[in-house]
Amino acid sequence: MALTTVVGLFMSFGLVLWAIATQGGITRIASFVDIPSVILVLGCTIASLITNYTFKEIWAGLKSIKYLFKPKPAAQQEIIKLLVNMAIKTRKEGFLSLREEAAKNNNISLLNLGIGLIADGTDPEVTQDILINAANSESSEIGVSETIWRDLSVYAPMFGMLGTIIGLIIMLRSLTDPASIGPAMSLALITTLYGIMIAGIICLPIAGKIHNYNERLSLIRTLIIEGLLAIQAGDNSHIVEEKLKSHLIKSKT
Amino acid sequence: MALTTVVGLFMSFGLVLWAIATQGGITRIASFVDIPSVILVLGCTIASLITNYTFKEIWAGLKSIKYLFKPKPAAQQEIIKLLVNMAIKTRKEGFLSLREEAAKNNNISLLNLGIGLIADGTDPEVTQDILINAANSESSEIGVSETIWRDLSVYAPMFGMLGTIIGLIIMLRSLTDPASIGPAMSLALITTLYGIMIAGIICLPIAGKIHNYNERLSLIRTLIIEGLLAIQAGDNSHIVEEKLKSHLIKSKT
Amino acid sequence: MALTTVVGLFMSFGLVLWAIATQGGITRIASFVDIPSVILVLGCTIASLITNYTFKEIWAGLKSIKYLFKPKPAAQQEIIKLLVNMAIKTRKEGFLSLREEAAKNNNISLLNLGIGLIADGTDPEVTQDILINAANSESSEIGVSETIWRDLSVYAPMFGMLGTIIGLIIMLRSLTDPASIGPAMSLALITTLYGIMIAGIICLPIAGKIHNYNERLSLIRTLIIEGLLAIQAGDNSHIVEEKLKSHLIKSKT
Amino acid sequence: MALTTVVGLFMSFGLVLWAIATQGGITRIASFVDIPSVILVLGCTIASLITNYTFKEIWAGLKSIKYLFKPKPAAQQEIIKLLVNMAIKTRKEGFLSLREEAAKNNNISLLNLGIGLIADGTDPEVTQDILINAANSESSEIGVSETIWRDLSVYAPMFGMLGTIIGLIIMLRSLTDPASIGPAMSLALITTLYGIMIAGIICLPIAGKIHNYNERLSLIRTLIIEGLLAIQAGDNSHIVEEKLKSHLIKSKT
Amino acid sequence: MALTTVVGLFMSFGLVLWAIATQGGITRIASFVDIPSVILVLGCTIASLITNYTFKEIWAGLKSIKYLFKPKPAAQQEIIKLLVNMAIKTRKEGFLSLREEAAKNNNISLLNLGIGLIADGTDPEVTQDILINAANSESSEIGVSETIWRDLSVYAPMFGMLGTIIGLIIMLRSLTDPASIGPAMSLALITTLYGIMIAGIICLPIAGKIHNYNERLSLIRTLIIEGLLAIQAGDNSHIVEEKLKSHLIKSKT
Repeated sequence: MALTTVVGLFMSFGLVLWAIATQGGITRIASFVDIPSVILVLGCTIASLITNYTFKEIWAGLKSIKYLFKPKPAAQQEIIKLLVNMAIKTRKEGFLSLREEAAKNNNISLLNLGIGLIADGTDPEVTQDILINAANSESSEIGVSETIWRDLSVYAPMFGMLGTIIGLIIMLRSLTDPASIGPAMSLALITTLYGIMIAGIICLPIAGKIHNYNERLSLIRTLIIEGLLAIQAGDNSHIVEEKLKSHLIKSKT
Repeated sequence: MALTTVVGLFMSFGLVLWAIATQGGITRIASFVDIPSVILVLGCTIASLITNYTFKEIWAGLKSIKYLFKPKPAAQQEIIKLLVNMAIKTRKEGFLSLREEAAKNNNISLLNLGIGLIADGTDPEVTQDILINAANSESSEIGVSETIWRDLSVYAPMFGMLGTIIGLIIMLRSLTDPASIGPAMSLALITTLYGIMIAGIICLPIAGKIHNYNERLSLIRTLIIEGLLAIQAGDNSHIVEEKLKSHLIKSKT
Repeated sequence: MALTTVVGLFMSFGLVLWAIATQGGITRIASFVDIPSVILVLGCTIASLITNYTFKEIWAGLKSIKYLFKPKPAAQQEIIKLLVNMAIKTRKEGFLSLREEAAKNNNISLLNLGIGLIADGTDPEVTQDILINAANSESSEIGVSETIWRDLSVYAPMFGMLGTIIGLIIMLRSLTDPASIGPAMSLALITTLYGIMIAGIICLPIAGKIHNYNERLSLIRTLIIEGLLAIQAGDNSHIVEEKLKSHLIKSKT
Repeated sequence: MALTTVVGLFMSFGLVLWAIATQGGITRIASFVDIPSVILVLGCTIASLITNYTFKEIWAGLKSIKYLFKPKPAAQQEIIKLLVNMAIKTRKEGFLSLREEAAKNNNISLLNLGIGLIADGTDPEVTQDILINAANSESSEIGVSETIWRDLSVYAPMFGMLGTIIGLIIMLRSLTDPASIGPAMSLALITTLYGIMIAGIICLPIAGKIHNYNERLSLIRTLIIEGLLAIQAGDNSHIVEEKLKSHLIKSKT
Repeated sequence: MALTTVVGLFMSFGLVLWAIATQGGITRIASFVDIPSVILVLGCTIASLITNYTFKEIWAGLKSIKYLFKPKPAAQQEIIKLLVNMAIKTRKEGFLSLREEAAKNNNISLLNLGIGLIADGTDPEVTQDILINAANSESSEIGVSETIWRDLSVYAPMFGMLGTIIGLIIMLRSLTDPASIGPAMSLALITTLYGIMIAGIICLPIAGKIHNYNERLSLIRTLIIEGLLAIQAGDNSHIVEEKLKSHLIKSKT
């Protein structure tokens, strides 16, 4: 996962630099870096984000970058195998034997929570309520991070345009020197360029990746909840496997 | 919460002023303030809002600014602790002991309403109906305020563009003096600038913040309703705590 | 309600006229009235509406203007008081006593319909079905009117742009006289101005007001249906009041 | 129904022609007809439609034009009267008497299907399932036609813009002759004009009309299903009438 | 299905080439192929896709092109006939006779899965759960492919505009030679042209076709699941047929 994110981002920026160099010569690249324009677009975008969210939410949004660079979530097939093995073991050795499993898989919080509840002999309905609440909580936590990146992809081009309009207004006020029109408009357009780049190269793809990551986790959460409830109900391990695997069936049609 | 709103707004306006000063010189800033343009954009935006809503709704929308500057809503953890303590107390001392709690927490209307109903011995189903109605009523009340700010962020750029087109039409009618074209177009563009600033710096972020505030309150309302119904049902305080906490679980995956 | 609609519309048009006069002089105002442009934009917008709807639907859409100028719907508090009084009376004097109420409130059709059904001794389930059908029918009837105004706000700017493009094409064909370019483009832009004004000043706010009116009626319909069903079920008038009032609770948080 | 569609389309095209004649003189009209532009915009729009749909779906979409010109669907009041009469007859003469009704109303397929099922003594639950499936099938069949027209209204302006950009690129390559710039740009803009006209005058209103037609049929389908199920259940004809009429209640509020 | 896709794509590209040749002469076509512009637009679009998705998802999205060129899914009528025959056979010869059917239709995975479950004597409720899970899994698998093509249709025009802005900035920096302005702007516009072509001719129609394909499969999945569950329940083959056929009823109204 880390790979595609890094490759995609470098590729985009590389292509933009290459396009500038091809069309205008390598020396042109420097003229595309205008620090005041960067500050205006990025600054206003971040400022609107600060107005829009609390510091806590923005901090969570930034931390969500970790989803882009971390090892992929436990594979679906492995989770199913794990749950089926737990079903077999529980039928033989009882619910308490699940506690050992918890120790082994302590990096999947939902699984651990559920194992604890079952081993404690919690009422099945209460177990289901708690697991669904926890899954929704996890999902909406990642959802807020996605929203932050989507909001950035709306604010950035808006402030890019704002910068261009400010530039145009200043330029139009002083048309006395026709030679300065070109460079002034050129500079004015740079904020629009930054706005589109921030939105199209960085924010939209990252928001999309976080969304997809959440979707994949969602399937895993469904597998864990269905699997644990079946184990608690004492279902036959064969049926548990059949049921869980049906979530992964691919079309041949 | 107050902090981020104020910081964000000041930061945006500061950056816009700084960008104008950097590109055009400090003396330029005055030329970006065109009172007739402010009146046109802001006036038409407010006029359309007045057509769109009743005075009562607009007033509620304005009062919603309070959500941006008030202390954050009671923390979720505290609400859970409060409800668990109430569950313990009720099991020992009966429903009537809840009345004292109501006196202590009279700034959370939903909690108070629920305590009153339980202490009065209202039927559980009726209690649930009433609490859900009240939660929906609170939520949609704040929702209308959010909508007003979203509508503003649609009207403002539209009337910004309207001002620019009026300016262009006037300018194009009198092209006899080429020297006046630049300043006239410059002035015409100022309404578009105002429209984008009102939408991107003020209205959209404030609508977003009210939305997030409502979402957080929504979780607290869910905690209160679930907690009170569990207390009324006489649930074990340990299970009440477990259930409520499951709404706050964060992902480790 | 009438007041805000009228105030808003006059304010918008006044501001536009004032902006034209400020920027171009009062004599300019006449040059912003171009009858052929009005006919093109308004005519094509209405023509597309005629293609889109049947005459019956358009007629209903026009009649919906009445919602903007009529006295506000019966206040929620009054409806609740009325229903609670009916609950008290019915418990004492039986369902037939409701008939007198119907005569007094014959301007609220849903209330009257329900009273008639209850007095006739209709089965509770059938009563509920009929009242919900009637509420949905009322709601979607007003909903169609809202849709017509929303469609107008889409068509008007589209045909405004169409007019501008036609003007540009004609102007570009005859560039021989440079002096005519300005006025020709100026005229071409007027249709865009009309399109934005029709959408932003008239159609969008009116669609919004009809929407809000329908939302408020929706709450009243909910109060009436819940109240009548509770009366039919013979619920305690205190509980009826408590339940209905819960729909109006405002947040203190 | 035929009338409004024809009137609307003729009115729009007439107004556009009139606007061209008013602004540029009648002789200008010919210069707005550019066959290669028509072929490009219409051709590419149709080509994308062919990629997007199968021939069968496109054929169904074209046939949906019949909805615009056919007599209006059986009036709601008549359908109710018909169903109430059937209810009375069935109570007297049994389900088999319904067969005669089917012969009389064989142009409403859903009604006929239902009558057949009831006369055959089909299980009420199965009857309901089959009628709901059939209603959904009819509704989504018309829905696909609406989607095709909506897609056309997206593709047409996109390819209008494509044509304009191709024209601009060719013109900008050969700026040597300034006199040709105007007519070249004028020609380039014609494809944009066509794109907007196809979308705003033809496709959007037709998609809207098909949508409204489907909505009205939907209500009739609801009346038929509810009516037939009530007849099968042997409900009192008075209650059948009351229930069905509640779908048509208009607000007096 | 293959036919319409190929015809549509060739027709669009052919029309664009023809339009260029008609307006600018056949020799112009070469000037519309600018390799660096292709690399920039296509490269950045693909780069953002790589950031947005994992390699596995992109690979699945590319493989989804097979849906455009493969023989159409088993016709609905045939599936119904097959299921009705299975219903008749099962009533006579028992569930085990279904196994032979599975061998004959092994290219429809959902049908085979269901036959296996029924022949194994799986509990009806479990069978239903598994079949619905499998159907959802198939549907969302194809849904992701559709999303990838929709995302492409958003990214491509965005990077087309990015290329145009880069070109404009470079051109405006060096306005000293007025003769170069035309060709430079012409070149700058080519990336916008590419962006629109990629979106409007390729990505949007393909996304639409995949969507429609999935919809049609969805109906077939519904038929299979309803049919198999009816067979398992031992329903009369006549009723099975009646029920399944009701999904295909066309409106005569």
